[in-house]
Amino acid sequence: MSLYSEIVEQPERIKSLLASQKKNVEQIAAEIQKRDVQYVFLAARGTSDNAGRYANYLLGAFNGLPLALATPSLFTYYKRPPKLKNALVIGISQSGQSPDIVSVLEEGRKQNCLTLAITNEAKSPLAKAADFLLDIQAGKEKAVAATKTYTTELMCIAMLSTALSDNKARWAELAEIPRWMKSVLKHDSKISQTAERYRYMDQTVVLGRGFNYATAFEWALKLKELAYVKAEPYSSADFQHGPIAMLESGFPVLAVAPKGKVFESMYEMLKRLHKEISAELVVISNDKKALSLASLPLTIPAEVPEWLSPLVCILPAQMFAYHLTQAKGYNTEHPRSIRKVTETK
Amino acid sequence: MSLYSEIVEQPERIKSLLASQKKNVEQIAAEIQKRDVQYVFLAARGTSDNAGRYANYLLGAFNGLPLALATPSLFTYYKRPPKLKNALVIGISQSGQSPDIVSVLEEGRKQNCLTLAITNEAKSPLAKAADFLLDIQAGKEKAVAATKTYTTELMCIAMLSTALSDNKARWAELAEIPRWMKSVLKHDSKISQTAERYRYMDQTVVLGRGFNYATAFEWALKLKELAYVKAEPYSSADFQHGPIAMLESGFPVLAVAPKGKVFESMYEMLKRLHKEISAELVVISNDKKALSLASLPLTIPAEVPEWLSPLVCILPAQMFAYHLTQAKGYNTEHPRSIRKVTETK
Repeated sequence: MSLYSEIVEQPERIKSLLASQKKNVEQIAAEIQKRDVQYVFLAARGTSDNAGRYANYLLGAFNGLPLALATPSLFTYYKRPPKLKNALVIGISQSGQSPDIVSVLEEGRKQNCLTLAITNEAKSPLAKAADFLLDIQAGKEKAVAATKTYTTELMCIAMLSTALSDNKARWAELAEIPRWMKSVLKHDSKISQTAERYRYMDQTVVLGRGFNYATAFEWALKLKELAYVKAEPYSSADFQHGPIAMLESGFPVLAVAPKGKVFESMYEMLKRLHKEISAELVVISNDKKALSLASLPLTIPAEVPEWLSPLVCILPAQMFAYHLTQAKGYNTEHPRSIRKVTETK
Repeated sequence: MSLYSEIVEQPERIKSLLASQKKNVEQIAAEIQKRDVQYVFLAARGTSDNAGRYANYLLGAFNGLPLALATPSLFTYYKRPPKLKNALVIGISQSGQSPDIVSVLEEGRKQNCLTLAITNEAKSPLAKAADFLLDIQAGKEKAVAATKTYTTELMCIAMLSTALSDNKARWAELAEIPRWMKSVLKHDSKISQTAERYRYMDQTVVLGRGFNYATAFEWALKLKELAYVKAEPYSSADFQHGPIAMLESGFPVLAVAPKGKVFESMYEMLKRLHKEISAELVVISNDKKALSLASLPLTIPAEVPEWLSPLVCILPAQMFAYHLTQAKGYNTEHPRSIRKVTETK
């Protein structure tokens, strides 16, 4: 099975990416620092858009860079691109093929912005449209649902943020990710056994906040693509502003709640869901009291720092989606109605 | 019923808002034009966040302004706000109370940005934190689910965009909105009669693109808050990148597809959903061929320009949510688990 082997090979891909791309990332960071970059303008779709959500928090928190997610239709259908003065324009796409993402980079270049492509295809239109290329080097991804290209995209963003802050301690933490990922892969048999419990789950919400807002989105996307579960992602804050009303007793809630600055707010929400609504909880965390609320607790190593936790937390989420797809009897390699490369304008 | 009367009073609220706030908006626009504003940084939650999505397209298309949606947790939990040089910082909140939105405005002011509050409460903390106030003047909103405060927020954004572009033809179009809204309110009995068909609908997806991406989000939010339907909003482009896989024959899809630049892309998606998946379609449009695909077609006036269509299209969506809530036997005034003012950090 390609999907399974692509999930399992992630620690090795991350390790080799760090080794081979560190210098390139440092050179790109040096060029960015020469310019008066005031914010990032980022274009992506699907899984790559979720990597963009990680960039939003990471570049904001560590590099002081606000981030605007591009609305590609302004460039394609409306033909009214905004003025991108002093923006760093980033495009993220596994295939580098999607015309709408390419058109954002082309416009950025036309407006004399610095442009950066993050892609798995060094010879793609996206790579050609950009001043700089960060090759995620994930190797051919055969399964339609993206897994290793998501974590390698996150890794590129984490490396770029680290290079921009020129911080040795952060580089050292990046080198630990493969080990943390491997330890999380050990949950495989537990998740495989428990997946049957969710055989008839057809809808769920996925909660995350801060750095792991991205993880909530990506977990939900895997469940939709692979297991055809109507899974909607939320920040715990937005969830309180309305959507919480739709939950009934026993409703399954998946949560990404590792230790860190937003943990207490996530934990308060989980306690409320547990106590007031008797929600069924699946929790990815390294905090015992959060895990103790869950029907299916998924532990990550205690020492994972919050800023890198999205690279580790997504692995049990991918495994959960994989095993649930098998329990439901669906095709893990070729989901219905979607293709690997989606060419949207 | 407060909710029903608040839906119905929208044409009058929009009319009086235009009359009373035009000068104020023009003064605010003049101040913005004195500064070297390079992008907009906007903070909001829930319904107001959906108004922010409209601003993203409108200020981009007509005013060349890129827009970044704030991630409030960077300001509150992480205490690492990004550098907001040359940003116009906007906060939108009905109550003006939410501490996280207020903290974004306070930080913007600290960093010497121009700050603007769009709120229904002129004496709220949000209004006090900002340089400029745009009072949406919706009157007291008693129902927990926001309706008239959404359209008046949209109207403030449309007026601001128009004032920044100093375009008389656009001001004239703004004056037509109350009339268009009134004509759409006439669908009430048709929607009321058809709502029973969706009595047992417990999940749906809502599609919109471009200016009406916001409408898709707001329609979905009303369905979640009021009728407890798991409704997930998508742009038709993102929907193709994965989520379409989860649809089975007969699945209900709600779509906002008025004539305009993105219409053809929406129509292609609707045809595909109709033909390949036999989806049940509810369509808001002024195009006959799009409406002909729908089990429940909801017509808006032919002459509504695309940029103002979100102010008109949301009315049948609100009525649909209202009547469905009644058909399901739920409380339209006080949905379970949520409050009118949600104070998130």
